[in-house]
Amino acid sequence: MAALSEELAHELIEIAHALADAAGKVILPYFRAPDLTSDNKLAGGFDPVTAADREAEQAMRAVLAARRPQDGILGEEFGALAGSSGLTWVLDPIDGTRGFISGTPTWGVLIAVSDDTGPILGVIDQPYMAERFIGGLGQARCIAPRGTSPLAARQTRTLDQAILFTTFPEVGTAEEAAAFRRVAGQARLTRYGMDCYAYALLAAGQVDLVIEAGLNPYDIQAPIAVIEAAGGIVTDWQGGKAHDGGQVLAAATPALHAQAMDFLNAAG
Amino acid sequence: MAALSEELAHELIEIAHALADAAGKVILPYFRAPDLTSDNKLAGGFDPVTAADREAEQAMRAVLAARRPQDGILGEEFGALAGSSGLTWVLDPIDGTRGFISGTPTWGVLIAVSDDTGPILGVIDQPYMAERFIGGLGQARCIAPRGTSPLAARQTRTLDQAILFTTFPEVGTAEEAAAFRRVAGQARLTRYGMDCYAYALLAAGQVDLVIEAGLNPYDIQAPIAVIEAAGGIVTDWQGGKAHDGGQVLAAATPALHAQAMDFLNAAG
Repeated sequence: MAALSEELAHELIEIAHALADAAGKVILPYFRAPDLTSDNKLAGGFDPVTAADREAEQAMRAVLAARRPQDGILGEEFGALAGSSGLTWVLDPIDGTRGFISGTPTWGVLIAVSDDTGPILGVIDQPYMAERFIGGLGQARCIAPRGTSPLAARQTRTLDQAILFTTFPEVGTAEEAAAFRRVAGQARLTRYGMDCYAYALLAAGQVDLVIEAGLNPYDIQAPIAVIEAAGGIVTDWQGGKAHDGGQVLAAATPALHAQAMDFLNAAG
Repeated sequence: MAALSEELAHELIEIAHALADAAGKVILPYFRAPDLTSDNKLAGGFDPVTAADREAEQAMRAVLAARRPQDGILGEEFGALAGSSGLTWVLDPIDGTRGFISGTPTWGVLIAVSDDTGPILGVIDQPYMAERFIGGLGQARCIAPRGTSPLAARQTRTLDQAILFTTFPEVGTAEEAAAFRRVAGQARLTRYGMDCYAYALLAAGQVDLVIEAGLNPYDIQAPIAVIEAAGGIVTDWQGGKAHDGGQVLAAATPALHAQAMDFLNAAG
């Protein structure tokens, strides 16, 4: 796709903020509400979908219907809607629903705009803390109650200096978990449980690596745009594009990314 | 120790707030600072102690020297100071230093007042989110930017309905990890990485169980007071007092506590 006009870039950024505002307004009253219930979306698994999740996506879709009807939508809750502009809004109203139902402020609203090359703008919004990480189309910043700060991944080049995050220790399949543990065994520190907030921390220069598996496109497109805007790298575990989800490796620097990929793919 | 006068209780509560204020003021400029460094406190291990940690404890000790010189102090950074009143302030300026150096708002300032029976007042303060959980001496509330709310553990009675937290998947020794996994295998959901914030979430009625091992007295005395004030239960893994640290089991209800203890102590 050709480069966007400055006017269109400005419009997309403004609408991304409007979507995040709309989602946060819907979700916050549900967060830590005493009567929060959740359905089991996957039989046998534990993947709660709350009313907040559904209502927030509806609120975002309403904004897009009014302001960008020509764009496509891919949303976690209500699927795909074709567009004619070549742009698609990729929406995950609550990424980290298990964190959400546990009361941890680790979940986020994920919003991306993608063209046929992948995400070009991303927002990771944490409404409870009122922190918004935005990257792409010239943006790379965290807007928070304590001020706005530039996003910049840090310069960590080796695993022995790296702080590594993933959400669940089991990571994915047994083989994926073993690959993760090979990297974790070399890292300075490994931590868990941050959901999409780990990607925001990488973009903010606080952590160095996030490795996950089994992701969906809407889980990772916004983090890709935010981290790339901060100078970091996001690929799949083979170094290819990650915007379709699956196995994801996000790193602060190319050297660190290469080292982590070596351990992920080392023979058991 | 005899029951405290209302006047003394009021004074202790006020000073606990002053300590949390003093610590937070010192620590916040260090949080997410780009040049944050950490020492290795334990040779071979990774237990960073930051300047923030030390300066915050000094700030709290200065408040106590001025206002309660008759009380003892047990602090993480500067050890024990004997008192004459029968009361001891138990201080952990940054509980969760690994979370702190990772930029996650999961660490907290822990402040307890203990008599010879154990903690009678506790504060779990999260300065970045400006959330303060206080329990004991008639207090049981969370003071936060979005308002003050009462603390009350929820009524979960069975493991299959329980959300379980611990900070590290390895928990402690291999045997302790195996015991933890017996409980986790029965729980509705197991999550990691919240440091002391998990105890605050239990008191706030968001999660049901926290199980940890290898704790120090200053890691657990404030959580004990906060959770007990919220109606929850904190013991060691055998049902005894937990205020000296070690293995800790915190639960929302007696029934859930008993069930978790059964699995912790089941023959391998």
